[in-house]
Amino acid sequence: MKLKMMYSFLNSDLQIIENELEETIQTERALLQEASLHLLQAGGKRIRPVFVLLAGKFGQYDIHKIKYVAVALELIHMASLVHDDVIDDAELRRGKPTIKAKWDNRIAMYTGDYIFARSLELMTMVENIEAHQILSNTIVELSKGEIEQIRDKYNYDQNLRVYLRRIKRKTALLIAASCQLGAVSANAPSQIHKSLFWFGYYVGMSFQITDDILDFTGTEEQLGKPAGGDLWQGNITLPVLYAMEDFELNRKIRTINENSTKEEIQGIIDSIKKSDAIERSFQLSDRYLNKAFKELEKLPNGIAKRTFNNVAKFIGKRKY
Amino acid sequence: MKLKMMYSFLNSDLQIIENELEETIQTERALLQEASLHLLQAGGKRIRPVFVLLAGKFGQYDIHKIKYVAVALELIHMASLVHDDVIDDAELRRGKPTIKAKWDNRIAMYTGDYIFARSLELMTMVENIEAHQILSNTIVELSKGEIEQIRDKYNYDQNLRVYLRRIKRKTALLIAASCQLGAVSANAPSQIHKSLFWFGYYVGMSFQITDDILDFTGTEEQLGKPAGGDLWQGNITLPVLYAMEDFELNRKIRTINENSTKEEIQGIIDSIKKSDAIERSFQLSDRYLNKAFKELEKLPNGIAKRTFNNVAKFIGKRKY
Repeated sequence: MKLKMMYSFLNSDLQIIENELEETIQTERALLQEASLHLLQAGGKRIRPVFVLLAGKFGQYDIHKIKYVAVALELIHMASLVHDDVIDDAELRRGKPTIKAKWDNRIAMYTGDYIFARSLELMTMVENIEAHQILSNTIVELSKGEIEQIRDKYNYDQNLRVYLRRIKRKTALLIAASCQLGAVSANAPSQIHKSLFWFGYYVGMSFQITDDILDFTGTEEQLGKPAGGDLWQGNITLPVLYAMEDFELNRKIRTINENSTKEEIQGIIDSIKKSDAIERSFQLSDRYLNKAFKELEKLPNGIAKRTFNNVAKFIGKRKY
Repeated sequence: MKLKMMYSFLNSDLQIIENELEETIQTERALLQEASLHLLQAGGKRIRPVFVLLAGKFGQYDIHKIKYVAVALELIHMASLVHDDVIDDAELRRGKPTIKAKWDNRIAMYTGDYIFARSLELMTMVENIEAHQILSNTIVELSKGEIEQIRDKYNYDQNLRVYLRRIKRKTALLIAASCQLGAVSANAPSQIHKSLFWFGYYVGMSFQITDDILDFTGTEEQLGKPAGGDLWQGNITLPVLYAMEDFELNRKIRTINENSTKEEIQGIIDSIKKSDAIERSFQLSDRYLNKAFKELEKLPNGIAKRTFNNVAKFIGKRKY
């Protein structure tokens, strides 16, 4: 089953989200408008809005209230992608040129700032102080994760714990917050908030690990950007850490630096793919997914729970 | 009288603000901590916190409540400076190397993101939805101003209106918001909010115009960075726009581009200083200042009003 089919009952609400996204970034500033719209129209899975809406179904669901949270979270995610592309010097995302590639780093930095500012403005529509506290704490963690990503580049002495903390901040916490905020803003019973948070957290960890695996195993067509980009940019991900447990691979991987040639890196990528690193990474991803399913069991039955279950399964098996 | 002497009755409260600033940026991430602290310790006039506190004196002043607004606004200002220095490729600020100079552009971008995130987290201590709306609208305008500054670089066909709108977004609105938010968060009578907003707005306009003049007339020692930096970076400010009304100067200024030599630009700066552009710029700054004084008249008498009056006078005459 395709991802979008799993939540087709949300279609009309997701259309409202899509319209609101476009409306929110509207500005009379042509350059800003063009850059933001370029990003928006590159698409994406809109996982965060979907999770907000599904979590909202455990409370008093009102699309005209919950949409603000859903749109704000997607915009925060988008803003962080724009800044990430500056750091990673990325040329392509989702098969389209990045803002930094189409314009330049300065425009990308300020477009990120602008989209982020817009998301905050939208969040003021939510008159719930708990929601604001959750979101702002998440954003602080997200920005710490960004700095960690720079610090840990080309650092071959980082351990698994450092990697897991980084992807927690980079990805898992925002997905966890999406679930939690959906429940909070729909006034769902408070014992549900925590389960939804942990469900989102575990799914997010699994999601990012799969992302890091696909960077090795996916094709350029599937990924919408060149494969092997992480290693190329010095991002040490789970498959690399596992591969480094092998003495010979460890020696090879440590030779990679900013001046490595494409051929050198491709050779190492091929070796990693031949090792057990990919399989072991999938196993860890699955372990997080199982934890997610366990959290889900604590939630009341219904279409939202079933859909969360299907989406989580899909994320564990996805190929793009 | 020195600026700080004018509000010595706020000394102990400003010390609380200073401590809170340092505490807020605390993090276990060494790099982030070092970069943020570097910025904090470079000092600054702390005009925004001072204005918040003074505005708060028109309501139920409680330093332990209002400090959150004061610190958040200073942090937002600091975050925007860090991103500005990336765009302007600035090496020095307040006599110290900028973050982008001491580390690099990537660290500067993320340090700005982090400081900004921290300010949002702090703002959640303020349980007043109006305050959040004012602040987020201001931040959106600020980020539009940032993009405008890039767009308008080396654009010699911009008019006075474009310049004024840019400095409004870049500077005046955040100072206006400082005054307004101080009043709002201290529950001052609502008719006072608007007057304080406009007072801050006019002072902010005058402040930025003076800043743009000083970039021509100040010494490197006074400015804490090389004089003439604006023209060097393609920032077309008020003295330049006035100077361009002269046919000969207009022709000369238009020759400036990213490849101009230091000698060429210095020659043009000297010509601008000899023209009436500086004097006319001071006149416009004074006109804004007079508008600020008129707004002040509408406010109830007391030490806060007297201090605002003195600070505004100082800003109009400042040499650094």
